[in-house]
Amino acid sequence: MLELPQLLRRKLFYQGRKFAYEINRYRLPNKVEAELECIRHPGGALVVPVTASGDLILLRQYRFTIQRRILEFPAGTIESGETALSTADREVQEESGYKAGTIRQIGDIFLAPGYSDEMVTIFLATELEKMETPPLQDEDEDIEVLTMTPIAVEQAIRSGDITDSKTISAFMMVRHLVMV
Amino acid sequence: MLELPQLLRRKLFYQGRKFAYEINRYRLPNKVEAELECIRHPGGALVVPVTASGDLILLRQYRFTIQRRILEFPAGTIESGETALSTADREVQEESGYKAGTIRQIGDIFLAPGYSDEMVTIFLATELEKMETPPLQDEDEDIEVLTMTPIAVEQAIRSGDITDSKTISAFMMVRHLVMV
Repeated sequence: MLELPQLLRRKLFYQGRKFAYEINRYRLPNKVEAELECIRHPGGALVVPVTASGDLILLRQYRFTIQRRILEFPAGTIESGETALSTADREVQEESGYKAGTIRQIGDIFLAPGYSDEMVTIFLATELEKMETPPLQDEDEDIEVLTMTPIAVEQAIRSGDITDSKTISAFMMVRHLVMV
Repeated sequence: MLELPQLLRRKLFYQGRKFAYEINRYRLPNKVEAELECIRHPGGALVVPVTASGDLILLRQYRFTIQRRILEFPAGTIESGETALSTADREVQEESGYKAGTIRQIGDIFLAPGYSDEMVTIFLATELEKMETPPLQDEDEDIEVLTMTPIAVEQAIRSGDITDSKTISAFMMVRHLVMV
């Protein structure tokens, strides 16, 4: 059930490349007034790609924000004119080089609801076909594709080798579907 | 292993209440130059509190960003002078009203590494004692405390009743320790 905060005063708004940043003064449902910062994000899609042998496809991707390469499932921002499903379909192709025959919607997650409205829709992709000429990646992406068994993914989460929250969440959401 | 991007030009910097927002032009390790937006966040701590009977304590918390109440484990931003552990200890008391006898560090996660450097350290808290006079919550918080069995948490993740990514990630990371 939606409960809208009352907007009292706009203070700052900046439209960036992938999201907007804003600070406003609100009256919250509990009557408290506060100046609150928020990222307004168009949302994203994440895909857990499962190969015919039951392995999962992950990416080792450079992230400038944390100055290191981390393991993630293919994911990206919903662009203008896209649905979460079409973003999912595009990102699997661009980032992993596979075309998914079947994409099944699993659920939605919020990444940082304390300061961002970003919702990521999680999908499970099967019937993968390796593309002979995959579409070009976004030019600022720096990605290596790898496969891992579901058990290896679970172990990598426990050992701290997988640290991306949306990736860990997605694995938890599909665990009962991919663990054999 | 850290791989630093080369900072070419600072463009925008705004220091907010809980985090800073910046846009800079970088040369990435793959030589691409790009203008990239980033949230600089001091980091956070999340606690999975386990009662003597093996139940988990969660909060139903109002989030103005997404205009609704969602289920989350107690968590908060690391404040000046705090360690992740002392933040964890404080947040359990403020948000749930329990004092933890033992707090064990489980691991670190990144919430949105595409545009934020926020790292959240996950803890497991046991030997909980209900406080007679819990410390005051932050004034803009609006929180209800509840307990759920680990199986109920797993079902709530699958059914879409738990959608907070750090909460789902934390459950995945402690699942083998709390499921009996």
